[in-house]
This record gives sequence, C-alpha cells and structure tokens, in this order.
Amino acid sequence: MIYADNAATTKTSRTAIAAMLPYFNTVYGNPSSLYAFGQQAKEALEDARTRIAACLGCDAREITFTSGGSEADNQALLSAAAIGARKGKKHIVSTAFEHHAVLHTLRKLKTQGFDVTLLDVPENGLLSPRQVADAIRDDTCLVSVMYANNEIGTVQPIREIGAVCREKGVLFHTDAVQAVGHIPVDLRSDNIDLLSLSAHKFHGPRGVGVLAARRGVPLTSLIEGGAQERGKRAGTENLPAIMGMAAALGEAVRDLDANARKLRVLRDALIEGLSAVPHSILNGDPERRLPGNVHFCFEGVEGESLLLLLDDKGVCASSGSACTSGSLDPSHVLLAIGRPHEIAHGSLRLTLDAENTMEDVQQIIIAVREVVAYLRAMSPVWRDLMSGKQKFILE
Amino acid sequence: MIYADNAATTKTSRTAIAAMLPYFNTVYGNPSSLYAFGQQAKEALEDARTRIAACLGCDAREITFTSGGSEADNQALLSAAAIGARKGKKHIVSTAFEHHAVLHTLRKLKTQGFDVTLLDVPENGLLSPRQVADAIRDDTCLVSVMYANNEIGTVQPIREIGAVCREKGVLFHTDAVQAVGHIPVDLRSDNIDLLSLSAHKFHGPRGVGVLAARRGVPLTSLIEGGAQERGKRAGTENLPAIMGMAAALGEAVRDLDANARKLRVLRDALIEGLSAVPHSILNGDPERRLPGNVHFCFEGVEGESLLLLLDDKGVCASSGSACTSGSLDPSHVLLAIGRPHEIAHGSLRLTLDAENTMEDVQQIIIAVREVVAYLRAMSPVWRDLMSGKQKFILE
Repeated sequence: MIYADNAATTKTSRTAIAAMLPYFNTVYGNPSSLYAFGQQAKEALEDARTRIAACLGCDAREITFTSGGSEADNQALLSAAAIGARKGKKHIVSTAFEHHAVLHTLRKLKTQGFDVTLLDVPENGLLSPRQVADAIRDDTCLVSVMYANNEIGTVQPIREIGAVCREKGVLFHTDAVQAVGHIPVDLRSDNIDLLSLSAHKFHGPRGVGVLAARRGVPLTSLIEGGAQERGKRAGTENLPAIMGMAAALGEAVRDLDANARKLRVLRDALIEGLSAVPHSILNGDPERRLPGNVHFCFEGVEGESLLLLLDDKGVCASSGSACTSGSLDPSHVLLAIGRPHEIAHGSLRLTLDAENTMEDVQQIIIAVREVVAYLRAMSPVWRDLMSGKQKFILE
Repeated sequence: MIYADNAATTKTSRTAIAAMLPYFNTVYGNPSSLYAFGQQAKEALEDARTRIAACLGCDAREITFTSGGSEADNQALLSAAAIGARKGKKHIVSTAFEHHAVLHTLRKLKTQGFDVTLLDVPENGLLSPRQVADAIRDDTCLVSVMYANNEIGTVQPIREIGAVCREKGVLFHTDAVQAVGHIPVDLRSDNIDLLSLSAHKFHGPRGVGVLAARRGVPLTSLIEGGAQERGKRAGTENLPAIMGMAAALGEAVRDLDANARKLRVLRDALIEGLSAVPHSILNGDPERRLPGNVHFCFEGVEGESLLLLLDDKGVCASSGSACTSGSLDPSHVLLAIGRPHEIAHGSLRLTLDAENTMEDVQQIIIAVREVVAYLRAMSPVWRDLMSGKQKFILE
C-alpha cells in the first residue's frame, strides 16, 4: 500500500507514541490536582506548552490547547467576533476557499448579524495582500486567511497579509493546520494574532490541537466549565495527547528543511509525471505550494471512481478534503479557483510525507495513468469529447 | 503512594491502551476516506459506537463522540435550548450543585434570554422527583440533573426524574460523567433524552467522551466544520481514543457489579474510620452514593493544608472538583447542601477504585486522623472552639 493522503491524516510517529505512553498509566495525575502526583503532570503540561510555543515563535502563555484544528478555528473566529462586537465592528474578511471549520463558523456568525466578505481567489489560488487591504473597512474586526490550502496546497503570503492587518488595526487569524510542521510558521514575524493547528497533520495524535493567541487578544470559551487553560477551555487536560503533540511538533520542526527538500523532489517528479496525462491540469501554484502536495483535475473522469480504482492498485488518495468526502458536491476550493463543475468532479489530491519514496511516485504515476485511461475508455462524456460532439475544457 | 482521587481522573487501563495502540500507526486511515484503509478505520469506529451504545442501553445512531464530558454537557444544553427557543420555550430547570460545565453553560444561556431555575438541594444531596415536577412550567424546555454528584457522590433518582420529564413533555439531560461505568446507567429505562459521559472517569483515555441523544432530539453543533458525526461534531474522528473508550467501558460495565461490591466494603470502612474523627461530618447520602466515594468535612481544618499534608503521607486526595482546584472559594456543592463557609473550607474527597485495598483504607484513616489532629493543634480557630470562645458547628 502507498499512503498518499497525509493531508487527511498522518501516521502517529514512534516518537509521539513514546512521548504519550507514560502519561496514560504512570504519570496519570490530573494536572489541576494539588498533590505532587498531579503537579508532576502539570509540570509536563507546561513544559509541553513551552516547547510548542518555541516551535511557533510565541510565548507559552499564548498557547491554548484544544481538541483539534476545527475547535481552534471555531474558537478563534468566535473570539475575534466577540471582540469586534464589543467595539461595534461586525465585518469579517475571509476567502472563498477556507476550510469548512472556518466557512461554517462564518455562516453561523452571519446569523448573528456579522457581515462577511469572502475574497475571490485567482486561478493559482494565491491571494494578494492588496486584495485584503482593499476589502478591509472601518467596521472590519477580523481577517481570516488559511496559511496553506488543504486541497490545492497553495501557500499564501501570510506575512504580508498580516502586515496589512496590523497596519489597519484589524485582528488576523490563520488556519495553519496544513502548514505547521511542513513549512516555517512564526507567529511574531508572520504578524499573526490567532493561529489554529492540529497535531495529527504532522504525525502527532488525533484529538488535540492548539489555538495560539497573541497576548492581549482575549479568547472566548467555546467549552464552558472548569478553570483549565486559564479559563479559556474547560475539560480535563488531555495530557498524553499534548505530550505526543509536543514531541511530534519538535520532530517535524527539527526535520522541516530536510523533509521539505526531499518532498519537493518527489512532488515535482509526481507533478511532471501526471502533467503528461492529456487533458489534465495541476491545481494550485506550482511554486508556492506545500512540499508534499500534488493536486490535479482530469477531464472526462469522475473523481470517486478514480479513487476507488487507485485503491484497488494500492494507492490511498483523495479527491480533496476528507472532511467532506461524503458529499457529492464538487470541492468548493476548486470552484473558488474557477474550475467548472465538470472539471472539478475529476479531481485527485496526492499528499506525500517523508516516508514516501521515488519508487512510490513512479508507481503512483503508472497507476493514475492506467486508471485515467481505463475510466475514459468507459466514459460516454469522453466519447463525446473525442468525437468532437463536446468541446474539451482542458488542453 | 495511595491514589484516592479517581473522581478527578483514573489510570488508563491496560485494556484501553492495548485497544488504542493499533490505531495510532497501523490502522491510521481517516475514517472519512473512501479507500479501504480509511474504511477499515470507519468500521472500527462504528463497531466502537455499537459497543458503547450497548453499554448505555441505546442505539449506535444515538451516540455522538465528543472531546470529553465538558464538551458533551455544553452541547447537550445548547442543543436543548435551541429546540426550546424554536418553540418559544426558554425556561430550564437544573440544580445548584451541577458540575460547572453545566452551570456555566446555563449562565451563558441566561445572557441569551433563558430563564434558569436552580433547585435547592437538601442536606443529603438527594433531589425528589416532586421538586422537579413542581419546578416545570409551560415554557420549560429542559431539565438537567446530574446522575451522580462529582463531589459528594450522591446518586439521584434519575429514572423517576426522567419519568416526570417524560410525562410533562420536557427534555431531560443528565451529566452522567461520574456514574457511567460505576453504577448501572440505561438511557431507555432511565427515561433519559440527553446523556454526557467522559472516558477518563472509567479508566479510558482523556480527551474523549460521548453525548448520547435519543433519536428525534436534534443536536446543535458546538464545533462547526466537516461532516463527521453526521454533521453534529466536526473534526477528524479521534479513533484511537474512541477505541480505548469502548474497551474501557466494556470492561467497566462487565466488572461493574463485582467492583461496586468490593468498593462499597472499602468505602463503608473508610466512612466508619473517618466518622470517628470528632467534629467531622459525612457529606452526601450514606446509602445512595457512588460505590467509591467518601466525602467529609472536618471543623477547624483548612482543606488545602489537609491535602498537602496528606500528600506528604503519600495519599492523593482532593477537596472537591479538580476542575476548580485553583479557586479559593468553597465548593458550590457544599454550599448548596447547606454547609456554612467555615465548614465547607475543611472538605476532603476520597474516591477509590478497584485497585485500592483494605490496607489502603486503613492507611488513609491513620493519615487523615494524624493530619487533622496536627492541623487542629496549630489552628487559632480550633483553640477558640476548644476554649468555648467560638461554638462548634459540627457535633
């Protein structure tokens, strides 16, 4: 089996598992307890917080642990909205191709009287800081732009967008779920006020993430209850998972350059191999993209069949976000970058990690070529395209 | 070390750890993925859901996985409130000694125009179904009463309270975090509409819980985003933790009677031993209490000092909820059952599990007696009590 769906989830690393294990049944005290056995857990928790903060270029006090990226996104947006509402500022700027954790929270905020501007995304998926600057109004309280897109892998000019927000005095949130551990991310120098991440996207465990909030940006609790996380997130701290996350992040950041170098070579070979398929197109910017991300559309091919036949050939891939795989609608990301429905339906995302090899890449290329050819041979749409009854959209 | 704080958190069982491990780095596919490797994870997820439902007397479709008990409590209340609001019913009945995950969510609902009646609790901590019936109004949308109190261990007449709610056509939620796995809980025969639980209270992992909602009771998402959990809880499913929870719950329910029998013997011996301390009082009902729960107040003793000195003697205990241990206020539970401030400050909760022995109990009794005597000897308040300058509150 070739696992090429690391944007959906990653294998938890041995380092992360080893870091978790003692906290299940050896140092299992509740960090909120007074006795030494609880305080030992508390020290581990705070040490993990400090190590994670160091990886993100912020202070330990700016880290709030959550149950994952979606919770962090929800809380970030609701917190910024609450700050805005107190000042009578109820306008939010975001983009049309954010993750649903952001888009659906924005939808909820709309029902609470917020006005949301979703910026159009150009075909390469790259926003310009200018677009953001032009969209900011006097009543704008928040700009939310994802660091790297979860489908097409485009890496935004976050630092420049952050600088625009800073200059205009508007809070800036970035969903960095796909970025952290894969490309350099630094809260301070990237001018970020609120940042969300998820551990299982960088070989940490599932069920744990971080909402980093710059000092002075008060968070609103999404989950009310006990006084954990300085009253910003109730619930017994998930110490084993937090220890696993800290270990995985430390490892990912330490190996970031080496992994990225390796992955770019694999990625570019895969892009080259798949570009040779006729009537196909690479989605996302060829340069400013995540090191492991490859995303194509194939004309005359239906995405779900493509995935199932690739699965038969031992390749685990996706059409886009795993979070929406039950849906028959084409990806909102592909529609946002201007792909027509019939093209968006034939999408394939391959996301590699450092365990993948050039041999994997060669096998994936062969498998995709065969499967695309097979599906086209059976497709009435393809017949119409070949006979000229219908016009090709892709070259 | 004698760990006697199992209501704060428990040691994750070997069974639970063994059930989790394969899902970290062997069957690590995303359950929302189409390929067989993801579907294998999906099958495990649904199998866990079925097994958990069987332990709770409900259907698999009635189980929604959350990040823990606090999240489940928050979501349960907000969901019932949303249902009520749609019908113009904005009154909620609960009790003064609920967990803060319930009380603080109710506080939030008050700011949204809900009227909340918190029932007084009698000294033994036992509500009567009559009290609940009398509090229900035409505009009541929800009754929320915890199954067993997290501090004083009182087990409420949930079935009877549920029957009252059913008869009056009002939704009934119970925070069963301290009950599930310790005493029999059954959604159907207990007449429960919404139930919250947390895995780490029954030797499962932290960071995972369940919101069980009777079919026909629509849930409102607390965390928006992907379509996981039938659109009711976004975020990649925390499969390792869910597998660990299912294993731990299965084990707890299988051994429930045997463990409860054993624990009641230990508990009653501990209660007997501590009752011999002069000017002390058992909190909570002596009969209708959790099998492992012992909770006392000692006059003229300050709770925090008591805990720290017990810690020196190797006993891990708490004054009440771990979630509020940072607070200097006396427990709201003890105030609710009518303990005056000066008594509530001298509280001690000991919560045993099946690994504790009669020897532990004897050692705890000796340690508590010594520490109470030591603290009283140093206490000016105690001197005033002994000299008759101040009157004893406790016999």
